[in-house]
Amino acid sequence: MNSFHFQNPTKLLFGAGMLNQLGQEVSAYGKKVLLVYGGGSIRATGLYDRIQQQLKHIQAVVHELSGVEPNPRLSTVRKGIAICREQGIDFILAVGGGSVLDAAKAIAVGVPYNGDVWDFLMRKAEIHSALPLGTVLTLSATGSEMNGNSVITNWEENLKKSFGSLHAYPKFSILDPTLTYTVPANQTVNGIVDMMSHVFEQYFSPTTNTPLQERLCESILQTVIENGEIALASPDNYEARANLMLCGTYALNGGMISVGMQNDWATHMIEHEVSAIYDIAHAEGLSILFPNWMKYVFKERMERFVQFAVRVWGIHPEGRTEEEIALAGIQATRDFFTRIGAPSRLSELGIDAKDVDRMAKETVRFGPVGAFKPLGEADVRQIIEMSL
Amino acid sequence: MNSFHFQNPTKLLFGAGMLNQLGQEVSAYGKKVLLVYGGGSIRATGLYDRIQQQLKHIQAVVHELSGVEPNPRLSTVRKGIAICREQGIDFILAVGGGSVLDAAKAIAVGVPYNGDVWDFLMRKAEIHSALPLGTVLTLSATGSEMNGNSVITNWEENLKKSFGSLHAYPKFSILDPTLTYTVPANQTVNGIVDMMSHVFEQYFSPTTNTPLQERLCESILQTVIENGEIALASPDNYEARANLMLCGTYALNGGMISVGMQNDWATHMIEHEVSAIYDIAHAEGLSILFPNWMKYVFKERMERFVQFAVRVWGIHPEGRTEEEIALAGIQATRDFFTRIGAPSRLSELGIDAKDVDRMAKETVRFGPVGAFKPLGEADVRQIIEMSL
Repeated sequence: MNSFHFQNPTKLLFGAGMLNQLGQEVSAYGKKVLLVYGGGSIRATGLYDRIQQQLKHIQAVVHELSGVEPNPRLSTVRKGIAICREQGIDFILAVGGGSVLDAAKAIAVGVPYNGDVWDFLMRKAEIHSALPLGTVLTLSATGSEMNGNSVITNWEENLKKSFGSLHAYPKFSILDPTLTYTVPANQTVNGIVDMMSHVFEQYFSPTTNTPLQERLCESILQTVIENGEIALASPDNYEARANLMLCGTYALNGGMISVGMQNDWATHMIEHEVSAIYDIAHAEGLSILFPNWMKYVFKERMERFVQFAVRVWGIHPEGRTEEEIALAGIQATRDFFTRIGAPSRLSELGIDAKDVDRMAKETVRFGPVGAFKPLGEADVRQIIEMSL
Repeated sequence: MNSFHFQNPTKLLFGAGMLNQLGQEVSAYGKKVLLVYGGGSIRATGLYDRIQQQLKHIQAVVHELSGVEPNPRLSTVRKGIAICREQGIDFILAVGGGSVLDAAKAIAVGVPYNGDVWDFLMRKAEIHSALPLGTVLTLSATGSEMNGNSVITNWEENLKKSFGSLHAYPKFSILDPTLTYTVPANQTVNGIVDMMSHVFEQYFSPTTNTPLQERLCESILQTVIENGEIALASPDNYEARANLMLCGTYALNGGMISVGMQNDWATHMIEHEVSAIYDIAHAEGLSILFPNWMKYVFKERMERFVQFAVRVWGIHPEGRTEEEIALAGIQATRDFFTRIGAPSRLSELGIDAKDVDRMAKETVRFGPVGAFKPLGEADVRQIIEMSL
């Protein structure tokens, strides 16, 4: 186990009806609220009205930033920062999935900064403060509700970059599983792939002697696998939705499950370059790329892949070589993704070989990526080519 | 899964050498520090000098409260509160195991309170603020380093009571596994029993549909079982000590592993009444009582005990009834405690039947205890009698 710092101050309010505590939570931070959300779905479901009612109870003055995109854009973030400054906003309330939350975090850190927020994503400046921020989650997927990370896309430059800061942790997040009943099947699928991928990035680590952390990772994977198909078959099954929601949050809450482990994140970095050019859902890219990344790297530390196959997928080791066991686990991952309806080839999404070089080159802009097996440009190109 | 609130703001600094960051962490909170510790072990190991050096670097003015007892006493807490008030202390630094940390928390909440701190333990007053507090942990056991709980003994009235408050969470805790190398074997054993017992209190729950939380609990139990015996055989095995330290912290860090589960805590409440009369180590009482509690209650919800036996102890279910599987898991728990040298009968510690009535009566002072199976006075008496 490596040495580490860990802190996660976010308050979770989890369960059906927790939305009724929204007003009280917000009231601790001031009256002028920027409400950030995406498309019209929160209006269609009535959530928008329930939130306005909560804010009305505390006599909040509400400004709005709507239309946050699935891959949230720098231009939208800048618009939010401008509103906050013009209106003297005290508190940002993000209502939606990971994209809305990520945009809200970027706005929160951008407001008190005396420069352009993009500096933080290009590692040109450090984050020292942020407006306080709270969230109401409507999609189980990214863990953004309990971490300080944000991923923003700059379309002018086709760059998708991320930052992480203790200042960007939400003060509170309201997690009501019933709000996810109306999530379309394909987005539920994306959420499942997303949270599993987050665990993969931490679990497939070069760090050894981390038995507790490995088991915590496996616990989440097993629970997602069990509950994902139930939620897809019965979208309003409370227990399945609640289990998924908790898994999504714990899968990426500041690294709680992987303290002291070097993380990988190569597959995320490759995917960001794919979706920086093609506006596909992040999880679609991950579903395609991850099993290919696994095949490309597994021999580096085969024992972790053997353990994954046996403990997570229940592969029986008897009569098989280590390599066969590891490959059976990778195949089980691909089969599961396919069974729930996630894509397995970039060509299914209309992406061909034309931008492979550009994507590979941009992935390694800051140097080799990944820790389980550090990948250079040629490695990345091969993984993308395996995924076409 | 039940609805829940969860928040845990404590910052962990984990790993060999993290003590070097102590001064910097303390400096955020002020210059006047109350250093709280137990007996002379931190002087013998040189830890005392290293801490004084860190505090000297930041020009701290250090006052001391030493001699905190293994079951920390109300009288000691009152003494600490008096020092803080007289000296205008800014920050409390607790160096030691759970007892020292618990005493420091009670001092921290007592200082700004305009009454006697014992009110908080008798539920006569609510905690609204506290002095800031940090810890350097020297014993893996109670999880006090990352929660807001404290257990204090009032010897004048033979009462041992607890409180929990968000205000009592340490601002930071330094967890350096090398500081536990010199912990005597019997205290290492107590720590192992203590952390396993904390998981039991959460895992044996009446709440259903909590697959992730159950697995998180099992993950800790398996890891403690594997690493406990290694640490006992090789006290300076870094990895084993590190794994135990992380398990102890995660086992009781504000309920992270059991969010949405009703906890039990009956066995702890019974044990508190035993050690309120007889000054035995908390973990000795738990080692004796827990397998008997298990035997007394397991039929209430046998499936959880079957799962415990199979997943944690690797009991093969083939050819056995559910009851036989459950009992094999309970026996495995007792055998493990015995193997590492923990006691199995109160008579081993010189405790006979004379105070059984008094202990049973005091346990249920505020009503029946426990959630897995609520226990009245007669139930408690039977469990204590099984333990004589």
